[in-house]
Amino acid sequence: MTSALLTDRYELTMIDAALRDGRALRPSVFELFARRLPTGRRYGVVAGTGRLLDLLERFRFGPDELAWLKRERVVDDATLDWLEGFRFTGTIRGYREGELYFPGSPILVVEGSFAEAVVLETLALSVFNYDSAVASAAARMVSAAEGRPLAEMGSRRTGERSAIAAARAAYIAGFSASSNLEAGRSWGIPTMGTAAHAFTLLYGSEEDAFRAQVGALGPGTTLLVDTFDIEQGVATAVKVAGPALGAVRIDSGDLAVVVREVRAQLDALGATSTRITVTNDLDEHAIAALSSAPVDSYGVGTALVTGSGAPAAGMIYKLVAHLDESGGWLPVGKTSEGKATVGGRKQPVRALQDGVAVAEDIHVEDPPLGSDAGRPLLVDLVREGAPVEAHRGSSGVAAARDHHRAAMAELPLQALSLSRGEPAIPTRYL
Amino acid sequence: MTSALLTDRYELTMIDAALRDGRALRPSVFELFARRLPTGRRYGVVAGTGRLLDLLERFRFGPDELAWLKRERVVDDATLDWLEGFRFTGTIRGYREGELYFPGSPILVVEGSFAEAVVLETLALSVFNYDSAVASAAARMVSAAEGRPLAEMGSRRTGERSAIAAARAAYIAGFSASSNLEAGRSWGIPTMGTAAHAFTLLYGSEEDAFRAQVGALGPGTTLLVDTFDIEQGVATAVKVAGPALGAVRIDSGDLAVVVREVRAQLDALGATSTRITVTNDLDEHAIAALSSAPVDSYGVGTALVTGSGAPAAGMIYKLVAHLDESGGWLPVGKTSEGKATVGGRKQPVRALQDGVAVAEDIHVEDPPLGSDAGRPLLVDLVREGAPVEAHRGSSGVAAARDHHRAAMAELPLQALSLSRGEPAIPTRYL
Repeated sequence: MTSALLTDRYELTMIDAALRDGRALRPSVFELFARRLPTGRRYGVVAGTGRLLDLLERFRFGPDELAWLKRERVVDDATLDWLEGFRFTGTIRGYREGELYFPGSPILVVEGSFAEAVVLETLALSVFNYDSAVASAAARMVSAAEGRPLAEMGSRRTGERSAIAAARAAYIAGFSASSNLEAGRSWGIPTMGTAAHAFTLLYGSEEDAFRAQVGALGPGTTLLVDTFDIEQGVATAVKVAGPALGAVRIDSGDLAVVVREVRAQLDALGATSTRITVTNDLDEHAIAALSSAPVDSYGVGTALVTGSGAPAAGMIYKLVAHLDESGGWLPVGKTSEGKATVGGRKQPVRALQDGVAVAEDIHVEDPPLGSDAGRPLLVDLVREGAPVEAHRGSSGVAAARDHHRAAMAELPLQALSLSRGEPAIPTRYL
Repeated sequence: MTSALLTDRYELTMIDAALRDGRALRPSVFELFARRLPTGRRYGVVAGTGRLLDLLERFRFGPDELAWLKRERVVDDATLDWLEGFRFTGTIRGYREGELYFPGSPILVVEGSFAEAVVLETLALSVFNYDSAVASAAARMVSAAEGRPLAEMGSRRTGERSAIAAARAAYIAGFSASSNLEAGRSWGIPTMGTAAHAFTLLYGSEEDAFRAQVGALGPGTTLLVDTFDIEQGVATAVKVAGPALGAVRIDSGDLAVVVREVRAQLDALGATSTRITVTNDLDEHAIAALSSAPVDSYGVGTALVTGSGAPAAGMIYKLVAHLDESGGWLPVGKTSEGKATVGGRKQPVRALQDGVAVAEDIHVEDPPLGSDAGRPLLVDLVREGAPVEAHRGSSGVAAARDHHRAAMAELPLQALSLSRGEPAIPTRYL
């Protein structure tokens, strides 16, 4: 299925207008960045890169798309010809997937003709605004969980295809697994699951339901113990599965209290290695509030897949330079009230002191001098139209997850605070 | 592409466990509903129905899916055989798309074997939780705009496929058009667009950029006038396009002030019929705040596609009844703390007095008596596995839009208040 019509109409009409005098073909540089972080956030997490590379390969205007555009009179015949032949032939550099970003960080730098770069605007923003919103929320939850594993269970709380992206973004940011099967198949993410209350209700009694589940999945499974009464549910779970029961799941009630009671009950029943997993509308704050409770793992849904209060990362895509008539690069930017942009091609580095990040240094026009300027942040993502394979597929996801962990380790400690504050490091234009 | 793996792993493992003793095949009824509305909302808007019917037809476990499930040992061979033959053969009734809903409204009633009904849980919730969140936000924006047209422009602020669903949901709730081309092609939604700041920056001067745009799209187009200085932008726009200029777009600044200045300037230049459209991070409150300003139309992005503070509608999918051993229907519900559900098959009607809605009456087990009980809310959506065509495609969307308008007209006037309050009508279980 083509991704080419996942595009705002004005991208094509701008091309249509600018093809008439040839200006659409002028070499140009666009940057994708966030003007600011969501209110109070200390850092953002880049996610979506590997997905964009796949979507880019399927960005084709086929006969059906061209016929529809013609019928709707979106563009003229000359533009239809141009779209028919469209292949992105430019270069995209950008932050590694999993990398952290700050206000102004040039997450993608897209270089090509004006037409071939502008036509990617809507799609690139859709991908990065959603995926990075989820990854940014996920990273805070991972910090709050202090090493305890988290599972992504939010598929039912976001669009059915966004659900795959959410599972992928959460995994990159340090979640252990997802409930979403397609995320497992498409991106190699470990999948997991327990059972729903409907299963217990179908059997009518917890004893029968647990027996059926243990029969199918073995005593190492996770039994849902709160359909009726939690204390009775726990007693029945251990009775049926024995002390080798893998885990119990609790999805209701005042978790801080309930979890302690359940731990004591499990221990008293000899099920000392049975774990407790909780799933009741958690966000990073609820996770942190359970840090002293005997919780072994968390399942997170709604708050994760909706960005925990910031469901879109606020990224924008702006023309920052184009070749002028004399063949030189002309930096450009708008001066609109409250929305001005910094023109010019940018080369960002993360400035470090003793291995700790101290600034996001964005060198405008001139590259940074010397290797001690900081860790360079741009890598090649697409070279002359060809996506770099290392960033794609399951191995790309695994690499992004590793890179995220390394980038987080550079942050100053106060960056991990969940309370509202300023970005963890300042952005400096040099 | 199959939709079958857009599913939580536990749906399949529950089926696996319950197939072993045949209980998975027991006739069952599931209901999809919201326990409550998002905080302070007066009503919700159902959207997603037509999309679910399409996804249901593509819910097939093909050789690739089965091979992956086998390799991952998600379920056993008997379950794989069952999945291979899976076709939904049950019946789905539900609220018409575009209908309003309230706490407890049974938006979908899915009847089939436990297995064939439970396996749709994740997908159905993904669709309704996202689409209804957008439609519910959109309806408030339409009220706030008091008859002035609204365009959906949020594709870049949500996942690239959710963007299509958002455009569709907004149109059902009364938006006039969308910027998203695929929404136009797939669902017959009118598409529109103006131009981006990048277009002006490419040309370097507003005069050249406007000349190119008017050359391509005619003077009836909408010119973006705030790349540098709005007053100058407006003067240039009228100079280039003449007084027949269709519209100017303003995307920055204090809109209530700026819009009045621009209107006066346009009028002074003789462009008295040139419209003003605004697009600067609007939500229903910002739209309402502009009600006395000379705005002609609105473009809405982020707030719309992220549900304006409620990005997931909070719908759940619960087993409410199944056939018991004696062949009678057994109502079932969980009693978990704070999350109890009402068992039994439900038949909802909207109680009306003099044409005004006064209650959401949900008849449990026994049907409502007499035609004066209220307007019946359930219609057939899928009959013995076959989706009802009237709810599908572009004509389904058009019908949903019409139905939404009629359902809104029944609401008491205070339901249109944007301030926080209780649901506009009470839900009564009878």
